[in-house]
Amino acid sequence: MSNPGLTSGNVVALAGGVGGAKLAHGLAAHLGDRLSVIVNTGDDFEHLGLSICPDIDTVLYTLAGIANRAQGWGIEGESWSFLDQLGRLGGPDWFRLGDRDVALHVLRSLRLRAGEKLTAVNSGFARRLGIAATVLPMCDEPVRTVVATPDGELPFQDYFVRLRCEVPVTGFRFDGVERAGPSREVLAALRDPDLSAIVICPSNPFVSIDPILSVPGMRAELGRAPVVAVSPIIAGQAVKGPAAKMMRELDMPAIALAVARRYAGFATGFVIDHADAAQAQEIEALGMKVLATDALMRDEADRARLAGECLAFAEMLHHG
Amino acid sequence: MSNPGLTSGNVVALAGGVGGAKLAHGLAAHLGDRLSVIVNTGDDFEHLGLSICPDIDTVLYTLAGIANRAQGWGIEGESWSFLDQLGRLGGPDWFRLGDRDVALHVLRSLRLRAGEKLTAVNSGFARRLGIAATVLPMCDEPVRTVVATPDGELPFQDYFVRLRCEVPVTGFRFDGVERAGPSREVLAALRDPDLSAIVICPSNPFVSIDPILSVPGMRAELGRAPVVAVSPIIAGQAVKGPAAKMMRELDMPAIALAVARRYAGFATGFVIDHADAAQAQEIEALGMKVLATDALMRDEADRARLAGECLAFAEMLHHG
Repeated sequence: MSNPGLTSGNVVALAGGVGGAKLAHGLAAHLGDRLSVIVNTGDDFEHLGLSICPDIDTVLYTLAGIANRAQGWGIEGESWSFLDQLGRLGGPDWFRLGDRDVALHVLRSLRLRAGEKLTAVNSGFARRLGIAATVLPMCDEPVRTVVATPDGELPFQDYFVRLRCEVPVTGFRFDGVERAGPSREVLAALRDPDLSAIVICPSNPFVSIDPILSVPGMRAELGRAPVVAVSPIIAGQAVKGPAAKMMRELDMPAIALAVARRYAGFATGFVIDHADAAQAQEIEALGMKVLATDALMRDEADRARLAGECLAFAEMLHHG
Repeated sequence: MSNPGLTSGNVVALAGGVGGAKLAHGLAAHLGDRLSVIVNTGDDFEHLGLSICPDIDTVLYTLAGIANRAQGWGIEGESWSFLDQLGRLGGPDWFRLGDRDVALHVLRSLRLRAGEKLTAVNSGFARRLGIAATVLPMCDEPVRTVVATPDGELPFQDYFVRLRCEVPVTGFRFDGVERAGPSREVLAALRDPDLSAIVICPSNPFVSIDPILSVPGMRAELGRAPVVAVSPIIAGQAVKGPAAKMMRELDMPAIALAVARRYAGFATGFVIDHADAAQAQEIEALGMKVLATDALMRDEADRARLAGECLAFAEMLHHG
């Protein structure tokens, strides 16, 4: 790409947690308020009576520039007095809630109980955190990812945090998704006449992107602009999280090509790392263009560079 | 008192916030698990969706030795990240909740919503905090102190914290108290055959002790042992809080005698400071014995000393 840079028009990104938030952050650097991020809510859960939205919060904290980069979740410089006292009082402390993080969960829970929609609650937080982009839950209805294992089903956070992804998976379902639908705000972003690209961030295809795509009516809304998907798998490994492990457990090769197969039919472009360039031909045979680049986001400059390349790639798909 | 010290048998203390907690702490030093503290819940309230019991928490933190002595509420060495972030997110931050304190409120709210009784929830916390004494809410039913002012009624915490007691009071009522009753645990403590004394701590007579005495059936249970009340007014001033200010606003003299009048008929002994010794004769005319001593609790030694004097006084009332 000789001229990576700003596409004109508005852009929608689909994102889960850490990897998705990083690319969304890079996109925000180019687009500001022209970016809308549709975020997975399948890993939301109730804990300690609080409504917790891990992926939304990771996107909020990352776009606000306050995310903890080392641990991949939570807030930089967070304190842990709440969790310490919770343990002392005999409460469940396996899910690590920082003191600042708890404030968001308490306020969100309060507002949801008062009847506000998740979308409205989170857009209030985004504004307060100084975020120019629009951060949208994939839907307002509760959807809960359930992980199937040889020993039965597990709620997602039990699998992900409590059991640290150690049990093998045999599949996933998204409890409640059949009663969900894209919110008015999600539809407005996807039907925007100025929409110039949809970017599927390098998030876990099974438990971050698939829940979003499983919302009834969502997939049909993705046809109005080039859809560029970024592989979360580089050289056979997930940059972070259990994606590659899941692929092996689900009897598919843990390679970028296998991710591309899941997005075939609606993604028009696929971004892979140079390390996986040998798979380009097979990915193109699925009906998408391929961009091979440095797909690893080590720092903020990488985020903006990769985001710029995705935007230029989308523009090329649109006009070329 | 030449021999202040342990009375035999069990002791019940009635307490509100800071002053009550201090004397309860002194009593606990003598009595350990022979002490039960019945605590005002009239200033309990719902805030941020959390069930907060300020007086119970002050008693718990004080008996656990973790109370902040300088500010009179909350935990020593508390951190404030939660409140800081709450304000940043646009939440109400007028009620100062420390990070450790929030853990207790979150866990209490969770357990109450799950159907546990307030008494059971708090006895769990007391055990976890290493408290030997029994800390009992005055009842399990919700009772809410409402403050009458010339401009209308105010919920207690609005008056006490948000408005810093600045508006004048014309009276109080205890919303819900007619539907409340002493819990099984409160009755067991007051009907204990080994009960040797009831101590009314130097708490605010209007908004700490009166709510307890207003629980239907409570007052009738106070006749099985000497009742020793300790004046919260010393030399015309409340050691802490608005008691003296309230007395003036309610057109009564802000003196120990006026407190004694409120307890006449069921208190058998009244403890005043040396500074108020001139009122002893008038207080005795109300039908109680008077002990004049150093009633100010400056430090932990004072707490234990005053508690010991109260216990010896009760023993004298019992046997003498």
